[in-house]
Amino acid sequence: MSEYRTERDSLGEMRVPAEAYYGIQTLRAMENFHITGITMAHYPRFITALAHVKHAAARANASLGLLDESKARAIARACEEVASGLLRDQFVVDVLQGGAGTSANMNANEVICNRALEMMGHQRGQYEFLHPLNDVNMSQSTNDVYPSALNIALILDLRELIDAMEHLRKAFWRKGQEFADVIKMGRTQLQDAVPMTLGQEFSAWAVTIGEDVQRVDEAEDLIFEINMGATAIGTGLNSHPDYTRTVTEKLVEITTLKLVSSPDLVEATQDTGAYVQLSGVLKRVAVKLSKICNDLRLLSSGPRCGLNEINLPPMQPGSSIMPGKVNPVIPEVVNQVAFAVIGLDVTVSMASEAGQLELNVMEPVIALSLFQTINMLRRACLTLADKCVSGITANRERCRELVENSIGLVTALNPHIGYEKSAEIAKEALRTGGSVYDIVLEKGYLSREELEDILKPENMVRPRYVLGR
Amino acid sequence: MSEYRTERDSLGEMRVPAEAYYGIQTLRAMENFHITGITMAHYPRFITALAHVKHAAARANASLGLLDESKARAIARACEEVASGLLRDQFVVDVLQGGAGTSANMNANEVICNRALEMMGHQRGQYEFLHPLNDVNMSQSTNDVYPSALNIALILDLRELIDAMEHLRKAFWRKGQEFADVIKMGRTQLQDAVPMTLGQEFSAWAVTIGEDVQRVDEAEDLIFEINMGATAIGTGLNSHPDYTRTVTEKLVEITTLKLVSSPDLVEATQDTGAYVQLSGVLKRVAVKLSKICNDLRLLSSGPRCGLNEINLPPMQPGSSIMPGKVNPVIPEVVNQVAFAVIGLDVTVSMASEAGQLELNVMEPVIALSLFQTINMLRRACLTLADKCVSGITANRERCRELVENSIGLVTALNPHIGYEKSAEIAKEALRTGGSVYDIVLEKGYLSREELEDILKPENMVRPRYVLGR
Amino acid sequence: MSEYRTERDSLGEMRVPAEAYYGIQTLRAMENFHITGITMAHYPRFITALAHVKHAAARANASLGLLDESKARAIARACEEVASGLLRDQFVVDVLQGGAGTSANMNANEVICNRALEMMGHQRGQYEFLHPLNDVNMSQSTNDVYPSALNIALILDLRELIDAMEHLRKAFWRKGQEFADVIKMGRTQLQDAVPMTLGQEFSAWAVTIGEDVQRVDEAEDLIFEINMGATAIGTGLNSHPDYTRTVTEKLVEITTLKLVSSPDLVEATQDTGAYVQLSGVLKRVAVKLSKICNDLRLLSSGPRCGLNEINLPPMQPGSSIMPGKVNPVIPEVVNQVAFAVIGLDVTVSMASEAGQLELNVMEPVIALSLFQTINMLRRACLTLADKCVSGITANRERCRELVENSIGLVTALNPHIGYEKSAEIAKEALRTGGSVYDIVLEKGYLSREELEDILKPENMVRPRYVLGR
Amino acid sequence: MSEYRTERDSLGEMRVPAEAYYGIQTLRAMENFHITGITMAHYPRFITALAHVKHAAARANASLGLLDESKARAIARACEEVASGLLRDQFVVDVLQGGAGTSANMNANEVICNRALEMMGHQRGQYEFLHPLNDVNMSQSTNDVYPSALNIALILDLRELIDAMEHLRKAFWRKGQEFADVIKMGRTQLQDAVPMTLGQEFSAWAVTIGEDVQRVDEAEDLIFEINMGATAIGTGLNSHPDYTRTVTEKLVEITTLKLVSSPDLVEATQDTGAYVQLSGVLKRVAVKLSKICNDLRLLSSGPRCGLNEINLPPMQPGSSIMPGKVNPVIPEVVNQVAFAVIGLDVTVSMASEAGQLELNVMEPVIALSLFQTINMLRRACLTLADKCVSGITANRERCRELVENSIGLVTALNPHIGYEKSAEIAKEALRTGGSVYDIVLEKGYLSREELEDILKPENMVRPRYVLGR
Repeated sequence: MSEYRTERDSLGEMRVPAEAYYGIQTLRAMENFHITGITMAHYPRFITALAHVKHAAARANASLGLLDESKARAIARACEEVASGLLRDQFVVDVLQGGAGTSANMNANEVICNRALEMMGHQRGQYEFLHPLNDVNMSQSTNDVYPSALNIALILDLRELIDAMEHLRKAFWRKGQEFADVIKMGRTQLQDAVPMTLGQEFSAWAVTIGEDVQRVDEAEDLIFEINMGATAIGTGLNSHPDYTRTVTEKLVEITTLKLVSSPDLVEATQDTGAYVQLSGVLKRVAVKLSKICNDLRLLSSGPRCGLNEINLPPMQPGSSIMPGKVNPVIPEVVNQVAFAVIGLDVTVSMASEAGQLELNVMEPVIALSLFQTINMLRRACLTLADKCVSGITANRERCRELVENSIGLVTALNPHIGYEKSAEIAKEALRTGGSVYDIVLEKGYLSREELEDILKPENMVRPRYVLGR
Repeated sequence: MSEYRTERDSLGEMRVPAEAYYGIQTLRAMENFHITGITMAHYPRFITALAHVKHAAARANASLGLLDESKARAIARACEEVASGLLRDQFVVDVLQGGAGTSANMNANEVICNRALEMMGHQRGQYEFLHPLNDVNMSQSTNDVYPSALNIALILDLRELIDAMEHLRKAFWRKGQEFADVIKMGRTQLQDAVPMTLGQEFSAWAVTIGEDVQRVDEAEDLIFEINMGATAIGTGLNSHPDYTRTVTEKLVEITTLKLVSSPDLVEATQDTGAYVQLSGVLKRVAVKLSKICNDLRLLSSGPRCGLNEINLPPMQPGSSIMPGKVNPVIPEVVNQVAFAVIGLDVTVSMASEAGQLELNVMEPVIALSLFQTINMLRRACLTLADKCVSGITANRERCRELVENSIGLVTALNPHIGYEKSAEIAKEALRTGGSVYDIVLEKGYLSREELEDILKPENMVRPRYVLGR
Repeated sequence: MSEYRTERDSLGEMRVPAEAYYGIQTLRAMENFHITGITMAHYPRFITALAHVKHAAARANASLGLLDESKARAIARACEEVASGLLRDQFVVDVLQGGAGTSANMNANEVICNRALEMMGHQRGQYEFLHPLNDVNMSQSTNDVYPSALNIALILDLRELIDAMEHLRKAFWRKGQEFADVIKMGRTQLQDAVPMTLGQEFSAWAVTIGEDVQRVDEAEDLIFEINMGATAIGTGLNSHPDYTRTVTEKLVEITTLKLVSSPDLVEATQDTGAYVQLSGVLKRVAVKLSKICNDLRLLSSGPRCGLNEINLPPMQPGSSIMPGKVNPVIPEVVNQVAFAVIGLDVTVSMASEAGQLELNVMEPVIALSLFQTINMLRRACLTLADKCVSGITANRERCRELVENSIGLVTALNPHIGYEKSAEIAKEALRTGGSVYDIVLEKGYLSREELEDILKPENMVRPRYVLGR
Repeated sequence: MSEYRTERDSLGEMRVPAEAYYGIQTLRAMENFHITGITMAHYPRFITALAHVKHAAARANASLGLLDESKARAIARACEEVASGLLRDQFVVDVLQGGAGTSANMNANEVICNRALEMMGHQRGQYEFLHPLNDVNMSQSTNDVYPSALNIALILDLRELIDAMEHLRKAFWRKGQEFADVIKMGRTQLQDAVPMTLGQEFSAWAVTIGEDVQRVDEAEDLIFEINMGATAIGTGLNSHPDYTRTVTEKLVEITTLKLVSSPDLVEATQDTGAYVQLSGVLKRVAVKLSKICNDLRLLSSGPRCGLNEINLPPMQPGSSIMPGKVNPVIPEVVNQVAFAVIGLDVTVSMASEAGQLELNVMEPVIALSLFQTINMLRRACLTLADKCVSGITANRERCRELVENSIGLVTALNPHIGYEKSAEIAKEALRTGGSVYDIVLEKGYLSREELEDILKPENMVRPRYVLGR
């Protein structure tokens, strides 16, 4: 048996490996695009989503009387196989490709077609019985298939991301509870400010991540809108008037996702605004994660020459030269993920801006950027929760000692003796190294009882009715 | 009379110009920050918003019995004056400043204090009667005043932006109606695709801008949440337990905006996520405007050597050397605004990421970036609508001629003769320069009647029941 | 006398204010571009540079016999006036403009023409005696005038920037000398590492800025290349074969800058690579300044709850609520400048990428971004040097105490007792709170003499011959 | 034989797969960093470079009498094996990692140590005979090893990039020659400007890429500076005074690269400016490639409804729905690479800005970004040259026809009849659809001979002595 079969397209003939499920157009794309070395197979959800789309189209075409039932059944079965994870190694084109995703779409068309041909008792390449374009791609265009499949894949990815973010949120929340009674110094601009609890600090991070979950959720809503039936440019040329409605219904059935059809398919086919929005929100997540990791690294700095308020769990020896050094390696890697994500958002913006007229041909780099962003953020959240936050311990005595020794306590004197006298005390404490408590007493501004009430750190971590006012 | 009065703060004494309403801390800030040359006075809404905040705080403090009624009244009157636009020239600190906005807050405290002193019959600088910190800033900190005022100013700015976007949306929509019957060639990847109407093209832009209006609206919602009562770090130190509720109510009354208090003030005081979200959404607006302007420039390219489908209204002679050249100067300037906005979004991301612990000290550059972004986008939308879109005319004959002469028509043959024969015809047309119509007839694939029905451009701009299927 | 004169151009007639030196095309541009509110007059060097270019062109045209000597003389005198700073208020067009700078060029042509007309004894607007296009713009196009003038303005700006950077470098260098004997703990990843001197820290910053000066210098070299003579697209249409050489020579004479003509004027007219390079290098300066300012803020954190190794000079009271708090406001504002600059670099990249075919029409936003970048960086360097670095003091005892108390000292034991025993000692010190010195002695790993030699901080700040090796 | 061996480090014991060459610290890193899924093995040059560094250190240590000769020999041989490409599968840690590259360094230390142990006749894990830290890492720290190895790897990568850029430059240059006599219309702002040759257009792109080669070359120079001998923070603690010089010499011998030691090792260890510079220059390359690809797509737009001046070689069928459509897929993928690179530059900037005090812990994401950037750009250049540029053909007749039919020709009349009359002719041509030639004749402004000389396109593509002047 020959090692190759010959296929042809409008540009001519090529020899395709006999065992390949993909065909000539996939082969051309493999030769054209050696760019990242990352093939579609690295993003299995995208392949699953493409199979769902092809499946829904076949069923819609059959139900509208456009496609032979037996062909539709074979396509459907092949799509189910591909969606379930088979034939992944047949998705060989580089994720980064010209042509607005034509090669990805053709790779799916050809693999599904050849697998369906087998199921129908034919051989791969016998396109006279089932055709990758006329049948598998019937009523479709890359320009509706690719973004619709992308949306489905992103929705699935985002759900996992949200789970990971929730996991991280809870980890912070639990620590917020655990540290609710640890009094510590709050800092603004890295300068000693006023007391708070370590619990308030960790709870705030939980809250901030909880808000981000909501934002991601809202951004996800936008990508439930798909443009199946747009065909080439949104005018629906070559599609049956009932096709858009039908294929969208079938796709909802198959995916169980509440997908809806875009009200203006011309607009939907050229617009990548939902991706820009999503990328912008994910950038926000990155920005906040990075800020929190910066804080964790600050608070755990030391052990002797830093703030040393908390201890991150030691994950690995920190240095090849400094014995005993343990580094905050987990927050550090999360920071780096954040920087990568922020950069990818610029890529998405530029790619979106580069759309022209009826189509944005730069969708593949948008897809790749979003996949990378979501995957890295998800892993970063899980890693941060499990390998860092959940093992954090507090240095309670150190925290309290810093408060009691601080000058920031004078702020609480403000309502009692005014800003200017308070500032004067602060200056004297700084100059002499003395304590605020002693200096106030010495100056006779307040009685010992008043002072004790005012300066008790526990009294300073929330608003309170002030003595004598 | 002396030209100067002497004021002092915790760093010492300085001579303040006698006629100045601002005081020593503003003076220090003027000396410290020569950075952009842009003073607060350039953003009058921010000053108004600061005055509203001070006004609300005075009323809240009075109603809680913390501030003398007569002082509160004087502060309130001074705030009303400032809010109404008086004393703008007294807001002299550079918009870009260290200290998380302390200087902006102090500038407001000092101006309001001195104006109120005047109203009370005292002289400027007689802080024994009314004090910028103890009275005007009572129960407040820069860390709640600055972001709360920023939010109010942004809300007001955004409303104008949304009006401008709506104005632009309608301009596109009207052209969509006007051009509803102009048949033209759709293009994907700058290659001839399939027919559509020019009306569909313009309507799509109207739709896309309409969606952006919704996104801006959602992002605006987030900044209705303010953190008054947080004081230094969100713990509300030195504030009355009822203060947060009271001051928020007063601020709602004064501004008539539906402001709400943030549920976690510690989180709210350090978090700049709402600004990142807003900036990201405004970046999305910029990305889309730029895409649309690119399209306008493409479609009006020529007049003889380009696409030449539409004419932009000539706004100015286009060249100092090429007589008669008229350039698409309005879309070009909008593109540039978009690039500026996309860059500013990176600035906002970096500034937000740089927050540390209980505060983000980089808020002034976030504020400046957002003000610049909103102002430029607003002017760009108005300019684009009034000086370009509303005057666009279509070259109807040229548009139709391109369609009839095109090879892309073969796509409509697909369902009738299959992808491969269609591709063969396309190739032959390209090679010979012939028309699709003639070649199909010649090959005898379809009858003249069928062909006329199928290839009629008007039949190709939406899905339709296909003859004989 | 009438308040207006009537001028006409190819689009029709307009009434120009009688006293205006600018003319109809400037007036159109004023109406078209209400975008930033920043007029050309804000960048006086750019106006000076435009005047130099017009001056050189007039002299070249005269010397080639193309322009009447008397006209050339009048133009030259008007240019000298403008270059010297007169008539600045006549440069009224918005810096951000469509048309690749046509309006800026026309504003210059018209102002210079009308001023020259006056000098020739005519009235403004009597273009029959001297014409803004035929005479003042002779042999020129916006497409060579605008970038050539931009380069000249940037060179002048960069020289001041370099001076400011040098000033900052020296300020760090002097502190490096002053702190040469202050032993302190080095930190990597915010964790205690090994000893160094504070002098090494400050000197490193001096070195790093010194390297940046070199990079800026190299990037500046690229913009000495100008494209005068390119006219519209680099082909030199309508210019005399000797014009490029002549006008470049004249411009060198007038500016005393070593400008050279680009070897490929077609390439030079469309290429904005030199601006991208310059912006990228200035972004590098921003990145480093920001890193240094982050360090200054870290090292001065406290005073009681932070690192507190150095004191920044107090520039203003730090808080409206926390008495005595002094914040690192100068480094903070420099950080913000850096974020702004990094964002502007993205703007420059996008604008440069958007060039099409023979021209980059986005040059005005490139120009604005570079002017803003250079001005902000310059002021940031001066401010940082004079209001912060030069007043920094060291907390010598605190620095030394941290070293002596540190665990990082164990690193020096490595070559003597191996990594593993050293790590064991580190762990024990951390667990017990004991000192490295005592634990080693107790374990008997080394004699007291050896230990004292090895652990003496002064012995650890540079490579040394180790005892017994 | 057991499947595992037990190893221990300062955090405790772990079971390492018996066949693994890596050890316990690598194992910990594998568990800690599941982030990108991309291991060090994907960047073989970096592994080679690490082996070179370890090799040089062993030889330097031996020559300074610090390391036993037999140990040094074993290490050297193991390093040579690794450098030659063996044991690649043992480099298992994620490229993105916390700890400033400690895990990458430890992975190298452990693999080299265990391979050397084998060569010495011992078993893996018998670190009493050769120790990954005490011996293989002797006189080193991650903080000098990692960046030094990174630089070496980058230099090798850059040389290949430069070759690819040169290849592309030549492809454009050859087309510039081939198209030297194709007269076409130049365009500014997408509007018809004045004539030029297609050869000038392609040559300009060759020139622009040639300039970029020089810029990359200059940026490469900066990374020849390495910081071996810095050890932990640049003070050289634990290193022999002659070590820096010696190890640098050895490394020059082994790599044959002209590496030099940084004059200030404290500065060099914290500074990532050379990476920012390099990334900025590579971004410039991306910006220009993208601009050129935009142009190629514009010029080849059509075939019937676009500019259609050139034909790109068809690489694959362009559409799954539009038969015969062929898309510019190669330029499109290059555009996307450019967007990715521009985004990565933002990542590098942020990572560099995040350095703190004596070290930049974010180096791994800088390394990853640069590797991705260089690899993608290299493949993009080769792909563009071989699959697009070299096969481009010109539509000569179309090009000439557009020129002759154009209105832009009036520009050449400027010096003869003045700007205003020329503009009037342009307007009339536009209104009537007539030709410039006919209208001028009709108006009698110039004689037929003059006109023929002036309007001959060949006379317009460079400066010339004008008739009668």
